[in-house]
Amino acid sequence: MNRKIFITAASVVFAAAVAGAQEGGNAATAKVSAEMFTINNLWILIGAVLVFAMHPGFALVETGLCRAKNSVNILAKNLITVAIGLLTFSAFGFNLMYPGESWILGKFVGFGGLGLSAPSGADIEYNGGLYSYWTDFIFQGMFAATAVTIVSGAVAERIKFSAYLIFAVLYAALGYTIIGSWGWGGGWLKELGFYDLAGSTFVHSVGGWAALVGAFLVGPRIGKYVNGNIRAIPGSNLGFATLGVFLLWFGWFGFNGASVFSADTTAVAYVFTTTALSASAGLVAAMAVSWIVQKKPDLSMILNGCLAGLVGITASADCVSISSACTIGLISGTIVVLAVYFMDKIHIDDPVGAISVHLVCGVWGTLAVGIFSSEHALLPQIIGIAAVGATAMAISGAIFLAIKATIGLRVEHSDELRGLDVGEHGMEAYHGFQIFSNE
Amino acid sequence: MNRKIFITAASVVFAAAVAGAQEGGNAATAKVSAEMFTINNLWILIGAVLVFAMHPGFALVETGLCRAKNSVNILAKNLITVAIGLLTFSAFGFNLMYPGESWILGKFVGFGGLGLSAPSGADIEYNGGLYSYWTDFIFQGMFAATAVTIVSGAVAERIKFSAYLIFAVLYAALGYTIIGSWGWGGGWLKELGFYDLAGSTFVHSVGGWAALVGAFLVGPRIGKYVNGNIRAIPGSNLGFATLGVFLLWFGWFGFNGASVFSADTTAVAYVFTTTALSASAGLVAAMAVSWIVQKKPDLSMILNGCLAGLVGITASADCVSISSACTIGLISGTIVVLAVYFMDKIHIDDPVGAISVHLVCGVWGTLAVGIFSSEHALLPQIIGIAAVGATAMAISGAIFLAIKATIGLRVEHSDELRGLDVGEHGMEAYHGFQIFSNE
Amino acid sequence: MNRKIFITAASVVFAAAVAGAQEGGNAATAKVSAEMFTINNLWILIGAVLVFAMHPGFALVETGLCRAKNSVNILAKNLITVAIGLLTFSAFGFNLMYPGESWILGKFVGFGGLGLSAPSGADIEYNGGLYSYWTDFIFQGMFAATAVTIVSGAVAERIKFSAYLIFAVLYAALGYTIIGSWGWGGGWLKELGFYDLAGSTFVHSVGGWAALVGAFLVGPRIGKYVNGNIRAIPGSNLGFATLGVFLLWFGWFGFNGASVFSADTTAVAYVFTTTALSASAGLVAAMAVSWIVQKKPDLSMILNGCLAGLVGITASADCVSISSACTIGLISGTIVVLAVYFMDKIHIDDPVGAISVHLVCGVWGTLAVGIFSSEHALLPQIIGIAAVGATAMAISGAIFLAIKATIGLRVEHSDELRGLDVGEHGMEAYHGFQIFSNE
Repeated sequence: MNRKIFITAASVVFAAAVAGAQEGGNAATAKVSAEMFTINNLWILIGAVLVFAMHPGFALVETGLCRAKNSVNILAKNLITVAIGLLTFSAFGFNLMYPGESWILGKFVGFGGLGLSAPSGADIEYNGGLYSYWTDFIFQGMFAATAVTIVSGAVAERIKFSAYLIFAVLYAALGYTIIGSWGWGGGWLKELGFYDLAGSTFVHSVGGWAALVGAFLVGPRIGKYVNGNIRAIPGSNLGFATLGVFLLWFGWFGFNGASVFSADTTAVAYVFTTTALSASAGLVAAMAVSWIVQKKPDLSMILNGCLAGLVGITASADCVSISSACTIGLISGTIVVLAVYFMDKIHIDDPVGAISVHLVCGVWGTLAVGIFSSEHALLPQIIGIAAVGATAMAISGAIFLAIKATIGLRVEHSDELRGLDVGEHGMEAYHGFQIFSNE
Repeated sequence: MNRKIFITAASVVFAAAVAGAQEGGNAATAKVSAEMFTINNLWILIGAVLVFAMHPGFALVETGLCRAKNSVNILAKNLITVAIGLLTFSAFGFNLMYPGESWILGKFVGFGGLGLSAPSGADIEYNGGLYSYWTDFIFQGMFAATAVTIVSGAVAERIKFSAYLIFAVLYAALGYTIIGSWGWGGGWLKELGFYDLAGSTFVHSVGGWAALVGAFLVGPRIGKYVNGNIRAIPGSNLGFATLGVFLLWFGWFGFNGASVFSADTTAVAYVFTTTALSASAGLVAAMAVSWIVQKKPDLSMILNGCLAGLVGITASADCVSISSACTIGLISGTIVVLAVYFMDKIHIDDPVGAISVHLVCGVWGTLAVGIFSSEHALLPQIIGIAAVGATAMAISGAIFLAIKATIGLRVEHSDELRGLDVGEHGMEAYHGFQIFSNE
Repeated sequence: MNRKIFITAASVVFAAAVAGAQEGGNAATAKVSAEMFTINNLWILIGAVLVFAMHPGFALVETGLCRAKNSVNILAKNLITVAIGLLTFSAFGFNLMYPGESWILGKFVGFGGLGLSAPSGADIEYNGGLYSYWTDFIFQGMFAATAVTIVSGAVAERIKFSAYLIFAVLYAALGYTIIGSWGWGGGWLKELGFYDLAGSTFVHSVGGWAALVGAFLVGPRIGKYVNGNIRAIPGSNLGFATLGVFLLWFGWFGFNGASVFSADTTAVAYVFTTTALSASAGLVAAMAVSWIVQKKPDLSMILNGCLAGLVGITASADCVSISSACTIGLISGTIVVLAVYFMDKIHIDDPVGAISVHLVCGVWGTLAVGIFSSEHALLPQIIGIAAVGATAMAISGAIFLAIKATIGLRVEHSDELRGLDVGEHGMEAYHGFQIFSNE
């Protein structure tokens, strides 16, 4: 089953109605009726609000899986990341990612100019009359912060606040956008036949590669790997972490569902279904694997399994069958647990499992398009993964190394021990809980 | 005021527009225009997302009202329940609940086959052209987990994780679906004139009866009833519990509002209004009753009063007057407090008040249809309550007894004392909060 | 850029379609097609759900920024405020705020009668055929509680629960509604040319003035100002506070976006964009100012900066340019931090910064309409600010003084020290967290 077929099927129905509705109107200027245009835009706008809700999700997952002494720092990072994403995207990111005809370097880098300005003439002309300029900006703008937020989790509990801010500005502005232009902006990967519905590659891997580079360059937390032993550092609040996963899943309905870029009933409902089933299969698989390996079902693995299923289906939610969606989720939930163990084995310290969830399952989800969809070939997917990986690592590496060489990446040893909340913000996140014996 | 009147009134308006819109189209195949079809579906899909948001609500209410040492277990249960609901519903639950013409045993049990497959031909034909197959599946699928989640709260803090999982799979797959088919699937209760808009019976009582059976069979928590005394076991985090109630109320706008199965303006807006006012009246009533009885307004009673008002209006939100909605809420908020006291008196230990909220107010809300709506008779409501109650208790009882006889229902005594988090999951939910004196 | 221009531009497109769609219909009775009517209403209804989500946001911000020993009280207040807002608004508030033709005292006070009743005849006739009676009620009803909730934060940790409830009922019923009728109900300020899209004045300042009066009359918390020193009283849970800000921002898309009162694509998407950018600029500015003044970036200032940007853009989100929206946010985020310092200097104890956020930035946002929008003059804005300020202070002052003279405003000294949770509710919010050393 496949998105194009959906849209074609629906178009027949719509065309009939539009023909009626537009009899007295100007059929030449609008592809759909004013009503359908409004519905399509409304859904994309609501999708933007749902994607926004993923940010508290990211904030809570990271806060909950890290230590209480670093909570203020994590919460501040995650909230500010949204602002950085939106402000840089409005200043020039949007025009870097969607250059239109303004390509500068082949179909690798383009730039449509500074700032935002709706095209003159009727908005309805924009994007083939399917959705408006401002709808496009705000939906894409909500995505812009997402890739950076992924990095936040991997370098948590030891990166300097200022270093993170600089990284976030540069990577949101230059990394996410230029790489994204290759596919979603109509660049060379799009022309090659690479397909990624909502961002297994363009959001999750782009964030995941930088997370890998960042976690490597900033090094493991004090006390994580001592004399070859791996020490578990338990999260401070699994209530927050679980609520965060729920919020991410909630927002993902907009992330994937509105990436259809219309309110086409069958397409949206089908994407909802594959998304929900892959998340479900992912969490069941992660539970099973952790139960077998650790003898008990580990909640943090279950949480990551759910997110893994969501990342895994993100590229292909509109173009695979229901059973394929379940398979994609099952594999995502399995490999995410193995990847978490593997990262610890090679001493890459990733406090929240961001690399395992977003990079490993982002790559897997991108491959899955070529494997499970009859419409898309595997080779362009592999080329895309490799090209995006190399570029994302190069850009993020250059940024991180430049920061390291100047202001430094990592907080003082004493601040890390005492917690970044006191060291970087002069405050703490929790005070005065009444503590009784745990009966 | 009454749903059918709404829809009839609206139809006149719509028919005029549709007549225009469809002039050049195929008026024979579609009941509404393509635009209206898309709007209707979009609202039901957004409703599905809102219903999804009830699951973190349930998770937080249960986590907040139970002890910290059982939080990981509760969070895991609630997240996995969503996956279980969706996966079983896609495998066969949907086709058990909505068998179409495929009835096997009278209009008591039907089965439309395994798996999901959209009907061939234009989707728009499905459900009288009102909404599509996939829309239907994902909205109903979000409901599927809800009934089971209710049970989770009543048996919390002492049921084995594996026992709960087995119960959840079987009751979501066989209990919720078969009983639901009697009404929403077009079965014998529907033919009898039984009415339940969004599930006072088919969701809340179906969960509530099983919660009663489960709480009885698993027995009270250690230390709850000692020498005839009732010991209050305070919740660990009323911040979580309150946020959970807010999320449930938030999601309930989709739960009730999209159960209208169209975006018909008057119907949806009216259901929003009755739902919000009943919830408001319920919490005010519960506050007043707890203030009178306990001398101080008890927050956990206020929370349950709000949920009681929501459960109470769920069957009748589209077919009672505004003042009736307030009355239904006031009575719900009153009886829920009395029911909480009563359950403790008969030594049924229900840590979150699930039986009082979902069973007692679910029954009351189902009766309220017959009492306050001029369209629906009382007798079919009473028959429905009795038939559903007997069947739900029989099915859930059989499942719980089978589990008890095999792997056992209850954790070890020592694990219950130490907490299910360590016993069942090998981890704890909270670490390292800085604790200062409470000034 | 300007809302009227948007609507005019869109109308041309819509008119064409409507002309077609309505050919066979009754063009005289409906301004838009039945489909467009349904879309408009659906968006306003979803907007109502989003505004509802602001209430848990308020609850968590207040709970998180106050001490743990007062959490039950704060959570109870915030939940009940929603019920009070909805119930009083349905009983008579709606008809006080939107009196239609039923003005009693000039265009200062009007009253349309008790209770709710949809106008007879087709709903579509209501409000110029743009949206229905019930849509209007539930959207406005969600706003009704908001102004009161603002006051809750400013008087937190020392006001009597009963005193707060009485204030909430009276101010929601009489203060918010009568003042609001001056603008949104078509009263004298509307006729003067005063403009306030979504409530910088009619919600936030109306709440903010009462917050100022309340905080002054109830007096500072014990120990806040001792011998001329200002003592910082740290919040109990910045995780909750940050999640609360995220939820408020999330809901604000409905608060501002649905205040356009249609699903007009350009208008809604543009309002989303200005709202998001102002919030972003506000939080960046507050971070910068607090970083300069306090040497470290303070999370509670960042949170208030974000809310400041949202309050600041609320009056003008549809009628200022993108760069103006950023400027409004930057100024909001700057003045909110200065206002917090100033309030402490004059010994007005406002535990959550409600006066700085909602009053100071509400006034600023109202002025910004006159400064940045080419459509609206500055003078009516100034007159509106002064008139609303004087009236809101008079009404809230009268209510608070009457309560003070009768049952008293403030809890006993010992209850304040021990916490309002035990004193007013006989329970505590948090129990039994396992506490390990903070590594």
